[in-house]
Amino acid sequence: MVNSDNKPQTLKGFRDFLPEEKRKRDYVLGKIIQAFEIFGFEPLETPTLEYASVLLGKYGKEADKLVYTFKDRGNRTLGLRYDQTVPTARVLCQYQNTLPKFFRRYQVQNVFRADKPQRGRFREFTQCDIDIFGSSSPITDAEIIATSYYAFKNIGFKKIRILVNDRQILFESLKPYTDEKVSLFSVIQTVDKADKIGQDKVIEELIAKGMDQKKAQNAWKAISQAKISDNLTGIISYAKELGVPDDMVEFSPTLARGLDYYTGMILEIKIPGYDEGACGGGGRYDELIGQLGGGVAVPAVGVAFGLDRTIEAADFFRLIPQENLGTQILITVFDQSTLVDSLKTAFSLRNKKIKTEVYPGLDKIDKQLKYADRKKIPYVIIIGPEEVSKNVIKLKDMKTGKQSELNLRQLLDMFI
Amino acid sequence: MVNSDNKPQTLKGFRDFLPEEKRKRDYVLGKIIQAFEIFGFEPLETPTLEYASVLLGKYGKEADKLVYTFKDRGNRTLGLRYDQTVPTARVLCQYQNTLPKFFRRYQVQNVFRADKPQRGRFREFTQCDIDIFGSSSPITDAEIIATSYYAFKNIGFKKIRILVNDRQILFESLKPYTDEKVSLFSVIQTVDKADKIGQDKVIEELIAKGMDQKKAQNAWKAISQAKISDNLTGIISYAKELGVPDDMVEFSPTLARGLDYYTGMILEIKIPGYDEGACGGGGRYDELIGQLGGGVAVPAVGVAFGLDRTIEAADFFRLIPQENLGTQILITVFDQSTLVDSLKTAFSLRNKKIKTEVYPGLDKIDKQLKYADRKKIPYVIIIGPEEVSKNVIKLKDMKTGKQSELNLRQLLDMFI
Repeated sequence: MVNSDNKPQTLKGFRDFLPEEKRKRDYVLGKIIQAFEIFGFEPLETPTLEYASVLLGKYGKEADKLVYTFKDRGNRTLGLRYDQTVPTARVLCQYQNTLPKFFRRYQVQNVFRADKPQRGRFREFTQCDIDIFGSSSPITDAEIIATSYYAFKNIGFKKIRILVNDRQILFESLKPYTDEKVSLFSVIQTVDKADKIGQDKVIEELIAKGMDQKKAQNAWKAISQAKISDNLTGIISYAKELGVPDDMVEFSPTLARGLDYYTGMILEIKIPGYDEGACGGGGRYDELIGQLGGGVAVPAVGVAFGLDRTIEAADFFRLIPQENLGTQILITVFDQSTLVDSLKTAFSLRNKKIKTEVYPGLDKIDKQLKYADRKKIPYVIIIGPEEVSKNVIKLKDMKTGKQSELNLRQLLDMFI
Repeated sequence: MVNSDNKPQTLKGFRDFLPEEKRKRDYVLGKIIQAFEIFGFEPLETPTLEYASVLLGKYGKEADKLVYTFKDRGNRTLGLRYDQTVPTARVLCQYQNTLPKFFRRYQVQNVFRADKPQRGRFREFTQCDIDIFGSSSPITDAEIIATSYYAFKNIGFKKIRILVNDRQILFESLKPYTDEKVSLFSVIQTVDKADKIGQDKVIEELIAKGMDQKKAQNAWKAISQAKISDNLTGIISYAKELGVPDDMVEFSPTLARGLDYYTGMILEIKIPGYDEGACGGGGRYDELIGQLGGGVAVPAVGVAFGLDRTIEAADFFRLIPQENLGTQILITVFDQSTLVDSLKTAFSLRNKKIKTEVYPGLDKIDKQLKYADRKKIPYVIIIGPEEVSKNVIKLKDMKTGKQSELNLRQLLDMFI
């Protein structure tokens, strides 16, 4: 871009989305947002930049290092959005007299992490969050589960597996096995890996952390055989009444989640057959907002979907329509004498909301067809002097190669 | 957020969009994007952060100062997106073998300006751009005009005024009045203010810039009485064939546009009756991409809409529906015994894509109704033991206060 020998490029960990990819993203996002709206969530948007003081100290020491911060020309220290929870905590505090008692908000914005880029991990990526603030009712936990289910169903997934657990079960089962050396949260972090590394490695890691072997085995036994809590039983039954099929939500006592702020129900969304990891996760966090906002405690429960994985999974199962997402018709221009007819036909189609492109020039028709082919536009219209005199258009189906002669009415009927 | 006496706040020039405002934005944006799609434009997304070297030196000295730049932990100098043209120039260069010959892209992202915040001017704001790259055909100029018209029509504006001019007309009319002291572009910048400050002040400013009085008067006469070019006559006639009504596009010889890179047709979109300034502007710039990309010349024509002004204008003319943008129904919870019925009813409604919220708790019905009222939810459903036994629901219209008893079928029919 600057030196002619310097190929212009994006920063590592950042991505361009060219039209084909962007359309996929918009399609999946559209389905997710539709689900959020149907479940009564309301949109919120917060700035990309915040005072760094709003962000730092909220994510833990390790994460703080990953917040992009810098000084602006006014010598203020700014930070780029790192997640959507902390900015929303600020919003809850700043507008507490304006917001409804129960604030059901969704937020779909990009977040930034000064992380090491690696496969599937980016420095800018889109998060899709829903949260309900202000209620500790198990109905809201169930609403989060049901919305998660519906969002993935709405994308088209046939099988959805929602694992749920209750942090209180983890706390009660594991507490007897902890001491000053091995903290409760440290044990939970190890148990969280069970799904990836398996039982034996979990026990090994507990031992490495300082538990003796017997204790580690018993700790695993205690959590893997833990009984469901009344709280979670209620939540699951409500979720089922709210439409989640019986076989798609299951109690998983070893589901732990890595974040330390969860206080109750936790959940993770998996797509059976897609093994790159969970497509979403969340839970109840009744103390975090009070800590973040420095004010009154606000009970909260929510879930965040990873858009990249969700799109990858949707792609894997071919749930994203390949056709009709983009331009449907290319109108070619035969010659200067028929140009007006081409433009008029474009007007008629667009007036009926049919996605139409006009070829901008007088190239040979073959070249214009080739252009449509390369752009995967499914239909091409040709209007030559013969068609003009007969008051028809020639429609070519680019897939079959079939051509048909239609009048305007017939053409519109085909596409409306 | 940090000190208890420090109220958490947004940075000056940055904004939160709470649900009501965000919905308005999403509504107007949806209409704009729909227009872009109908006219065959394809979506593009570029990263928020770029190498600063990609951005700096592209906007002119003054603008360079307004680009947010900083060093990351890897000591790379980064910049925040300042507009959408320069990142797209990078994309055109980086993916030149992948992109179609004529690249019609739309881009709707936030841009950042380290500018002095003032009324209506923000440091982060949304731009809506369409551009056609790769063609110098006047058909593409007309496509940009027609898409602009259709986008505003699609929002609901009845009167739209698209002013057009041709930079070549400005160049030819004004060149005789320029010299080393007063450059052509400097004169154009003064003429650009005619609409705001009027003819007398324009002439005054030209004199202040160093023209003698007679010359300044003649320069104004030359441009204000300039004749339309053949190029522009053709473009306007094509735009009309593409659907722009006769009285909504007009030649304005004193329309100048401030940016120096335009080479041909220029346009500005105004909404008669809304006087806060143009809602969009653009034009042809056949040399810029070649300069930016350091490579081959790529002819280009486009327009950018200012979302904030467009929303303000739409609000002014009450084009944004006040109802049915958000949650349509609140389902109250009468008591624990009827909770399951409330949840089941929510499921049935949501299954038909009706936006539904469940009240999360067992508060008194009056309190639940008050909540719906404050949130402007138009309908409330009450299901008490009596309704359960009769297998009906009670629907309350919050506007009229009218209550009706319906079975599920009748309820669904009302909202689908």
